[in-house]
Amino acid sequence: MNFCSHCGSDQLEERIPDGDDRLRIVCRNCHTVHYSNPKIVAGCLPIWEDQVLLCRRSIPPRKGYWNIPSGYLEHAETVEEGALREVWEEARARVEILQLHAIFSIPHIGQVYLHFLAQLTEPDFSPGPESLEVQLFREAEIPWDQLAFSSSRFSLKHYWNDRRAGLRQVHLGGTQYDLLGNPIR
Amino acid sequence: MNFCSHCGSDQLEERIPDGDDRLRIVCRNCHTVHYSNPKIVAGCLPIWEDQVLLCRRSIPPRKGYWNIPSGYLEHAETVEEGALREVWEEARARVEILQLHAIFSIPHIGQVYLHFLAQLTEPDFSPGPESLEVQLFREAEIPWDQLAFSSSRFSLKHYWNDRRAGLRQVHLGGTQYDLLGNPIR
Repeated sequence: MNFCSHCGSDQLEERIPDGDDRLRIVCRNCHTVHYSNPKIVAGCLPIWEDQVLLCRRSIPPRKGYWNIPSGYLEHAETVEEGALREVWEEARARVEILQLHAIFSIPHIGQVYLHFLAQLTEPDFSPGPESLEVQLFREAEIPWDQLAFSSSRFSLKHYWNDRRAGLRQVHLGGTQYDLLGNPIR
Repeated sequence: MNFCSHCGSDQLEERIPDGDDRLRIVCRNCHTVHYSNPKIVAGCLPIWEDQVLLCRRSIPPRKGYWNIPSGYLEHAETVEEGALREVWEEARARVEILQLHAIFSIPHIGQVYLHFLAQLTEPDFSPGPESLEVQLFREAEIPWDQLAFSSSRFSLKHYWNDRRAGLRQVHLGGTQYDLLGNPIR
């Protein structure tokens, strides 16, 4: 942010506004406080018999790596609607949501993943524009070292554990990095 | 948004960018696409024996109405950290999270509520700056017609039902409005 989106001034400063307790970008000219908040990444892990559906990304970041179909929630949609839309956009698949599966926070980049488990209504899928390939995987076939993001690793690991244990539960997790970019949990 | 926050131009237009499928604010001068996404409202329903803790709002919107302590998730915090912070800010109470309780989407204003159930570590609380009062309520005492938001109604209703039934589960819900502002579910 170089200019105030309200008045066009370049007199922006980072300061703690009155009555607040954290740094915000504030316009010295019109006094608008420019808030920024984390974004929701909504998606589904589509299930077919003993297999799950993953997409290989055709775009950065992590182009060429496998991911649970997911993407930024948009205005005017519920979390569930966003998750279903992403499955269609990335995997051209239709699913029915079974349950919420995971909430995975990534504080240093302001993302919160919400992953649902979902049933493929039929084993019919193909790559959308942001995918190179879409494929069903049994547990032993999961490309663990070719997963795009830690959120996919988290949700997949818990999915197979829950499946073996016969459990249906929601998993809370996340990844944090120190100022040098090293994971601290 | 009146000016491009990147280049300062007032030549903004609403159009569908190449490769996208929805309207965005785009700068005609520097071609920056200004994305906007829903925000997360994180909070906890604090529990003490057969009572829950609610806050009466000292600020708009819905000043004077009762609410589950909650507020916008900030950068650099997990969903759980944000929920605990809000309980401290609004109710000056310390809690331990028990479980996720509800995800409540309000698409027309771009909000997603994430409510946890949480145990008060002691019955010690007082109004923070955004609260007029903080009070424990038994089920029969809940001020149903004085609740600030539909998300509080949703979570409270399900909390008491689950408690009676001995269930621990996550509730997905939301409210949508048509173009005239009438609720459609």
